[in-house]
Amino acid sequence: MNTKDLILKKLVENKGKFISGEFLRQDFDISRTAVWKHILKLREDGYQIEAVSNRGYCLRDFQDIFDRSAIISQLNTKLLGKNLIFLDEVDSTNNELKRLAAAGASEGTTVIAKKQLAGRGRRGREWFSIDEKGIYMSVLLKPDIAPEEVQAITLAASSAVCKAIDSYTRTKPGIKWPNDILLNGKKVCGILTELSAEPDKINSIILGIGINVCRKQEEFPAEISKIATSLSEHSDFELSRSRIVAKVIEEIEDLYMDFLEKGSTAKFLNIWRSFSVTLGCDIYICQGDKKWKGKALDVLDNGHLLVETADGERQAISSGEISIRNVCGNITWGRYSNGSKQ
Amino acid sequence: MNTKDLILKKLVENKGKFISGEFLRQDFDISRTAVWKHILKLREDGYQIEAVSNRGYCLRDFQDIFDRSAIISQLNTKLLGKNLIFLDEVDSTNNELKRLAAAGASEGTTVIAKKQLAGRGRRGREWFSIDEKGIYMSVLLKPDIAPEEVQAITLAASSAVCKAIDSYTRTKPGIKWPNDILLNGKKVCGILTELSAEPDKINSIILGIGINVCRKQEEFPAEISKIATSLSEHSDFELSRSRIVAKVIEEIEDLYMDFLEKGSTAKFLNIWRSFSVTLGCDIYICQGDKKWKGKALDVLDNGHLLVETADGERQAISSGEISIRNVCGNITWGRYSNGSKQ
Repeated sequence: MNTKDLILKKLVENKGKFISGEFLRQDFDISRTAVWKHILKLREDGYQIEAVSNRGYCLRDFQDIFDRSAIISQLNTKLLGKNLIFLDEVDSTNNELKRLAAAGASEGTTVIAKKQLAGRGRRGREWFSIDEKGIYMSVLLKPDIAPEEVQAITLAASSAVCKAIDSYTRTKPGIKWPNDILLNGKKVCGILTELSAEPDKINSIILGIGINVCRKQEEFPAEISKIATSLSEHSDFELSRSRIVAKVIEEIEDLYMDFLEKGSTAKFLNIWRSFSVTLGCDIYICQGDKKWKGKALDVLDNGHLLVETADGERQAISSGEISIRNVCGNITWGRYSNGSKQ
Repeated sequence: MNTKDLILKKLVENKGKFISGEFLRQDFDISRTAVWKHILKLREDGYQIEAVSNRGYCLRDFQDIFDRSAIISQLNTKLLGKNLIFLDEVDSTNNELKRLAAAGASEGTTVIAKKQLAGRGRRGREWFSIDEKGIYMSVLLKPDIAPEEVQAITLAASSAVCKAIDSYTRTKPGIKWPNDILLNGKKVCGILTELSAEPDKINSIILGIGINVCRKQEEFPAEISKIATSLSEHSDFELSRSRIVAKVIEEIEDLYMDFLEKGSTAKFLNIWRSFSVTLGCDIYICQGDKKWKGKALDVLDNGHLLVETADGERQAISSGEISIRNVCGNITWGRYSNGSKQ
């Protein structure tokens, strides 16, 4: 973090209070003129910082400035996001992180972009993200696990996002197995996990997270406008993307570190269960050409969904799509992945 | 394939026989002068082609010319190797194919290099391949399977290589689970499989195959000279790398197509079993810090190794290293992967 970012972090931590120029000068071992130059630069970046003689500097309110400095000034993590790449635009944050991983990027490296020119959802679908009305981010993890254990890790991502957005929304977010996050039955967030591995060992996992933040209902592509939604449509707050990004990274770190320490998925699976809108429901399961009905009973330690079939048999589902309300046969998956067909 | 390669293929198919210039002229719809120019170019490439008036052209014997033309003139496949990239040198054929796959390379794309500057073995070890005394190749597959099914596919690769080299060696090649190929207990071939996937679906599999072909025992790095070997040390034949590469690609295609058609691993697992030097043996299993003894009973449909522990319990092994002769505790895995510690 450079000095400007450190001063911003200090102002953010003391939001609404004055910090003296002398304090900043001593804290960062720079001249008062240098402090003043950094304050001017922060104002140029858009921060409304008051300066009062004999009192110092004060950031009254944290505006939604969405850049690297804004995120790291609000981020308190030990591993995730310590190497943070912020881009104005990119093909896809997963693609960029894949390139960085191939070049040796360390665990926790995070890529965030204001917009994606070729955002991707699961199974080759698109993620509509060519405007600056969402959060498009990817996090690199390198746990020492086998490929079949990855499904569970992906559930940590949806659990973390739910924890991060829950306090901003009027309705509680819900998770549709495995990782679609819904508000009032419409999709607000999708997660695309990609892994690079040997058959018995993961090299790296990329958790790609797309959140529809401030896109109005009519700004979605027509084919998903009825099944997609945004945080802003369900929130009474001014939403700061930088604050939400920082919170999502912190929540993922919290759950991931717990997993590494205890070797158990229990903590985040319990959070996942508490946000689930799948468990206890009659669902339709689509696996390739196979379509069948069952009742979702629980999520297993490995992230698979335990389903009871019509004839009482229990089966663990590891792949495919589920549908909660409609007959599976009616579902035709379209171009975009932002929306969720219920 | 260009006309020169097509003429070479025709000469190879009719090895030892004369083909008239008129036949070639008509077959490829070119002038006799053009035929003669291609023959001259092939001679420049190193092929010893006889030309006799009124009889035509004859390739007496197929020399070990190791280039793209030599391989494709001997290759009879429908999918694998149809897109074949031949390089004088590369960091690693798996790396190159990974880059090509990221740029959209089609299934079956194959990369072959005369030498690798940073050849890799399993779990981050090196594959000694900076000289031109081996075969270093990678094949791209895109089956519609889940990551946990990949282990079985990798066994198709070792089965195919054994079938391809069996006719050249005095002793029958043996496979140590999962994929080390041994001659008289020393490693002659290693396979590094890497996959790119979503948690429930493979995007692509790269089968990387390294075969020690004509490296003399004393030309291996000292630390593996006693546990590595080459085809040439166990063969009475002049070995042609291009012929072996073509045979390996054909054998993989044969087993892979059978798997795709029948959805079953049975065919190549039976071949794997017939070359196995693991089944029926007392083995030591090393999984991280855990080391234990058991008897290898069989390979399962998913490629896992079924082991009976000392107290009669049966367990399926999906990861780790096994050792057949020595106590596991004595094994310290070194820098290079070319050799196999027994």
